[in-house]
Order: sequence, then C-alpha cells, then structure tokens
Amino acid sequence: MTDPTLSLRRRQLLAGGAGALAGTGLIGLAGEAAAQAAAPAASAAATGARPLPAYVAWKDPNAVIVHSATTIETKRSAFGTSGITPAENLYIRNNLPAPDASIVANRDAWQVSIEGVRNPRTLTVADLKTIGIETVATVLQCSGNGRGYFPSKPSGTPWAVGAAGCVLWSGVPLRYVVEALGGVAPGMVFLTGTGGEKLPENVDPLSVMVERSVPVKALADAMLAWEMNGAPLSLAHGGPLRLVVPGYNGVNNIKYVKRVAFTPVESQAKIMTTGYRITPPGEQSKASEPSVQELNVKSFVTGPAGDRTVKAGVVYVTGVAFSAGAPIRRVEVSSDGGRTWIDASFVGPDLGRFAWRQFAMPLRMAAGNYVVVSRATDSAGNVQPEQRLENAHGYSNNSWKDPAVMLSVV
Amino acid sequence: MTDPTLSLRRRQLLAGGAGALAGTGLIGLAGEAAAQAAAPAASAAATGARPLPAYVAWKDPNAVIVHSATTIETKRSAFGTSGITPAENLYIRNNLPAPDASIVANRDAWQVSIEGVRNPRTLTVADLKTIGIETVATVLQCSGNGRGYFPSKPSGTPWAVGAAGCVLWSGVPLRYVVEALGGVAPGMVFLTGTGGEKLPENVDPLSVMVERSVPVKALADAMLAWEMNGAPLSLAHGGPLRLVVPGYNGVNNIKYVKRVAFTPVESQAKIMTTGYRITPPGEQSKASEPSVQELNVKSFVTGPAGDRTVKAGVVYVTGVAFSAGAPIRRVEVSSDGGRTWIDASFVGPDLGRFAWRQFAMPLRMAAGNYVVVSRATDSAGNVQPEQRLENAHGYSNNSWKDPAVMLSVV
Repeated sequence: MTDPTLSLRRRQLLAGGAGALAGTGLIGLAGEAAAQAAAPAASAAATGARPLPAYVAWKDPNAVIVHSATTIETKRSAFGTSGITPAENLYIRNNLPAPDASIVANRDAWQVSIEGVRNPRTLTVADLKTIGIETVATVLQCSGNGRGYFPSKPSGTPWAVGAAGCVLWSGVPLRYVVEALGGVAPGMVFLTGTGGEKLPENVDPLSVMVERSVPVKALADAMLAWEMNGAPLSLAHGGPLRLVVPGYNGVNNIKYVKRVAFTPVESQAKIMTTGYRITPPGEQSKASEPSVQELNVKSFVTGPAGDRTVKAGVVYVTGVAFSAGAPIRRVEVSSDGGRTWIDASFVGPDLGRFAWRQFAMPLRMAAGNYVVVSRATDSAGNVQPEQRLENAHGYSNNSWKDPAVMLSVV
Repeated sequence: MTDPTLSLRRRQLLAGGAGALAGTGLIGLAGEAAAQAAAPAASAAATGARPLPAYVAWKDPNAVIVHSATTIETKRSAFGTSGITPAENLYIRNNLPAPDASIVANRDAWQVSIEGVRNPRTLTVADLKTIGIETVATVLQCSGNGRGYFPSKPSGTPWAVGAAGCVLWSGVPLRYVVEALGGVAPGMVFLTGTGGEKLPENVDPLSVMVERSVPVKALADAMLAWEMNGAPLSLAHGGPLRLVVPGYNGVNNIKYVKRVAFTPVESQAKIMTTGYRITPPGEQSKASEPSVQELNVKSFVTGPAGDRTVKAGVVYVTGVAFSAGAPIRRVEVSSDGGRTWIDASFVGPDLGRFAWRQFAMPLRMAAGNYVVVSRATDSAGNVQPEQRLENAHGYSNNSWKDPAVMLSVV
C-alpha cells in the first residue's frame, strides 16, 4: 500500500493495457464549467454569487467565491495541479479596504521606513532594487482558513480550504537591507511591519491599523517583495511593496508596507494585542494567549472537487501539503474517512520549503460513497492532526478530517 | 571577479553600510509605468500600439507588444524575476486563428486520437485524467524569436527577445498513455502531433495545417497538458489540450491537439516539409535541411530593460537562461559588450531542466554608456555563441550579442 512512485501504481492499474483502460470506466472528472460547491459549512456565503469588486475585477469569477469586498476565497476545484496559484485565482483577505490605486502608478517611488536598525532610514522601492534580489515561493494562508468547519460558528469569514495559495515572490531579502543599515539595533526582539492602508477617521488608530510583530528570527527568510508570480505586485495583494514572512500566517505578510521596525515589544495595535489570538471557546482574547504566527502542518484534497459525482474506475485524488518551512516528507490519502491510508506521490517541481507540494494518488473506485481525506507529515516530524484545536475565533484549523471531500462514485 | 554567491558580492558593494548605500546614488530602475521600448529592430512594429484581439483581451496590454492578431510579444521589461511567465504576459504565435471558444466550454469532452500504437484509440480529456498526472515547467519559445536582429530582415514577425516564456504545464505524460495503449507500434520513428484548428476552405489542407513531427525520443518527456500555471489551459495557448514537447521549439507544442501519431515518416504538411527549416540566406527551403526542433542554449538580459537611462551606482542586471534540457551551469554577464565577463548568480528555485533559470548580477556603474549582454553555458558543455547562424527565415537566433541592452548611466 506504500509504493514509492506514482508510475508503479499506474502500471498496476493499467496492467492489462488498453483493455484495463476500458475497464476503468473512463471517468470524467468535473470540468471547471460545472457548478462548484464549497464545503458545506461555507457554501451559504457562496450562494449569493456576489460580483467581483472593482479592485479585483481581473480575478477569474469562475475560480473564486466572493464572501465580501475584502474576503474572496479560491474554489477548491480551482487549485489545479501546477503548484502555483495564479493571481487571478488567489484568495483575498484585507483587514481594511485597499488604498487608492494611485500608489501603484509610480511603484518605484513607494517609501518604506526601516527602524530599529543602527542606521534607520526611509528607502524607496527604487533604493531597494539596488540592494539585492531573490525569488521565493511561499504558501500564503489566512489564519482563519478552515473556520467554516468549526461547529461553534465563530464570527469571521467561514472559509473552507480556499483562503490559501502558493505564489512566487520576488524582491529583496530583508536581511540584506538590514545589513546595509548597520544591522538590527541592540535589544530588539520583534520584527514589526506596518501597513499603508488609509485608516478610518475618528477612531483610535491602534484599534484598526494593520501592524503585526513576529519574532526577529523571521528576519532570516523575510523579504520586501514587489513582484508576485512574475508580474508587478497588484494593489489587491499588497503592491507596490509587501513584507513577506515565509512560513508565517497571512496576516503577518503586511501589504503596502510603509514601516518595518525592529522593536523590543510587540505592536500595540489591536490586531496584534488581542486580535489573532488562540482563545479558548467562549472567552475574550488576551495578549497572553498564543498569537497566530507560524503555519502548522496541513494538507487538503483539491480534486476531484467540482462535481462530486464521478464514474467508477480510476480516480486521481490530488491535493496540496505544506508546513511552516520543514519540507513535507509524506502525504497519506484515505478514501474511507481515515480508517485506512495509502502514501501519495508528489507531483511537479519542488518549489522550496515554504511552498506547498502537490500530491496525486490514483484510486480504483467501485460504485459507492467515499470520504476522501489527506494527512501530511513534515520533516520535523509534525503530523497533521485529525481534530482542529477548538478556539473562539476559528484560527489555525489544520484538521485532516474537516476538509474531507465526499465523493459519490456511480 | 567570479564570486560564487550574490550575497558575497553584495557585501562588497555595501561594505560601508548605510554610507556605502548612499554612495550608490540610489538609482531608480525603470518602473513598469515608464514607456517601454522593444529592441530597436522590433520597435517599429510596436509603435502602432495595436489593441489586444478579443480572444486574448485578458492579457496585460502593458506587458505585451501586439504585432498582429496572432503574434503578440512579451516586452523585455515585463519578464520580471520570478522564473515563471504569467499567462497574461506570455507571448502568442498562432499559425492559424484560434478555433471557436466553444471547444473550451466542455474541456473534458475534447478528443484526441492516439495512432501508431499497438492499440490505437480516441481518448477524451476525461479519459486522459484517469491515466496519470504530472507537472513540468518548460520554456516555450517561438523558433523565430530574435528574428528582428537579422540584418537580412527575413519575412515573419520581427521578434526581439519576447517570443519566449517559461510556464508550468500540468497533464498526463504521453508515455503513460502510450503504455496504456500497448506501446509504440513497430517501425515508428517520429512523434507527430496535429492541431485542431479549423482550416481555410479551398486550399490544400497540407499547405496550411499545423502538424509537426519530432523524433520519437521526445516521447520520454512529452505530455498532453490541460493546465498552464495553475489554471485551465486557455484557448489562446492551446486549450483544452496541448501537446507539450519539453526542450523543443514552440511550433512542436501542438495546440488543440486532435491527433498524436507515431509515424514512420515526418508529416507531409508544409509547416514540416519546407516550413521551419534552417535554409541558407537567399535560398528556397528544402525538406533535406535541418528542421527547427530542439532549443539551443540561450540567455538574455531582462533588466534593466524599460527606461534604459539609469542613475549611477549599483545596478542589478537580471535575465533568463535556458537550453534544450541540459541544466544551465553558468551565466556570464558583460557590461562592455562582451570584452570582459563576470559570473552571475542564479535567483529563485530551480524549476527543472526544461525551465529557464533566472540570474542576477549587481554591477557598480559610473556614468557612461554600457552594452549589457549575457552568455549561458549548459551542463552538456554547449556555450551560447556570439553570432547568430544566418538563415533565410531568421530561426534559432541564440546570439548573445544580438539582444544587447544599451544602458545610459547618468
């Protein structure tokens, strides 16, 4: 049950040549034109079929579920198997409305203040482009991804699996910038990024501003990115400049970043102090609770995921697996809800330890109902758990059981 | 002059810390909003600024040069440094108008006839999806890329560097399909793909049909792809199904593929018999001449490439390098037109031997005029030549000299 290669399994399945192929029933996987259903818990939000807001009018309306103007989910059936999520399919979760598009009219002029270094300075994107360049693929995932599966129905967007994607970022490693400015100042233990959103008036800025702190160790991989997937970073995804913190939850990847500061304490913005905390169900959030920082090990099935009724025969189960940066070592697939497992094979190039790995597993399925799930293990030994960690706001759901795909094979 | 890492060089450049940074002049690289000039030889075609044709209305008009409805070039300044070319920036070169969009309305129903195997059969895309799945990044390049640099002004689109891109394909390896159908029939030495374009009436089909043959050895890597860069393959790029032949020139990657045949002889279509041949200047093409098949080793500079006037200081020279499948071992950069060279560093993940590698090289430039070029060497020992091979139709230009970027540093 644990053949190392897809090819081997495929040979077994097709051992009889064309005859065996005929015997598979030649199933038709769901085309993208078919009606797409989100996970049951999240489907209510999708039934309205809201139109795309103007600032993301370029997104593929067939690939996404518009929850609101600032929360847009990738359909499970739209992830494909290429490893990279195209910009037009990538989810959106903005804590504040996007700034005016004028900020991307002259991208190189955008300024970011670098503080908490020996020689603080404000640099333009043009300046940054003289300091260094690197390209890294990372998983971007909203910490609320999977909230839709919490039976407690926490407030917030009821994401199923699609508040996540894997994209290529290009920009300058932040450590090069810091080095050019003399290094981190003594005593600094957090890396704090501040977003350039326009804040609503007549409210305490700390109550609304997007400012997050991560441990200073994140400097090792952080970058200031101006490009995503080979194109200038769109306004919707944080252009002209975004702080990318590989291996950390989406909220820490600050859009329109206007300030990067090394600080002795965490940001006092509400989004940091009490927001995005793992709070026991029914309680108020406190700054002493764990913050949503590094990603946990996770995988989910992405196909078949459109039309959940498929023909008997060979069915390729596909999906993605990722962690906080430890390479994914193993993905298991089950078609009986986790009673029995079989190792899946990886598909496509390894885009690096912060990217997700695509997996695929051919299963020969007779008529019946199946509960298809996947379970990832990373090279640090972290195993995706069966159960979510219950918490008040529905964060960090990496249960393998929750995102099960119910398949009806006929 | 040949430090192994970008980081080391960067340290040298920035040895004085913030002071040294200030000393660089903080140059501004060209923003994408700046006017973009194609290579001189190709710029005439761009000045008209033709609108995008309807079937590719989703392309980024700022990233491409529309030569005609079926020939669209990526601007050199639009390649970015992420390694992958997004669909909206990718070049178009269609030998015939794209078929009606109805063929992508029900993708899984598209049929391809597999012939020259022991058990020939027509399969749908749905069938193919039960046979296997793989994802591969490949360079797609029109064999006429660089034609604009030929002083002989061959007929055909005067491409500069932008009839090329690197994309991720996902689909089924063709060898799995062939295996399922009993293997290649005896005596077959070519792999022939036929496009599903609608042919003009009242002409000999052989004179216009898109049908190409490659040596059967290409079966080792060929695939039938239904996805590009994580999205269903667009009509413009050959959806619903394309024959992808990694390492071979674009024309061999048959769009809307309706027939894959293993054959004892090459296709008798004109596009094969006398088209795409390396013909001596001034002569008529003959079937005995070499056909445009495997890619040759090549690189070109992609940045700075918008506004060619930059400020004195550190300038990052970026570009791409690729071959027919032997990994790129070395890329050298010169700012004096090839008199002196320095080894560049690679940037970003290695997407596999058929992908291109991004490179980057920081150069400290004083005021003056520079001729920036790059030269690639692959692991098979192939070195990009200085001169193009002169030929009647302007194919296979891999000269390192031709695509030089003239930089004015002020």
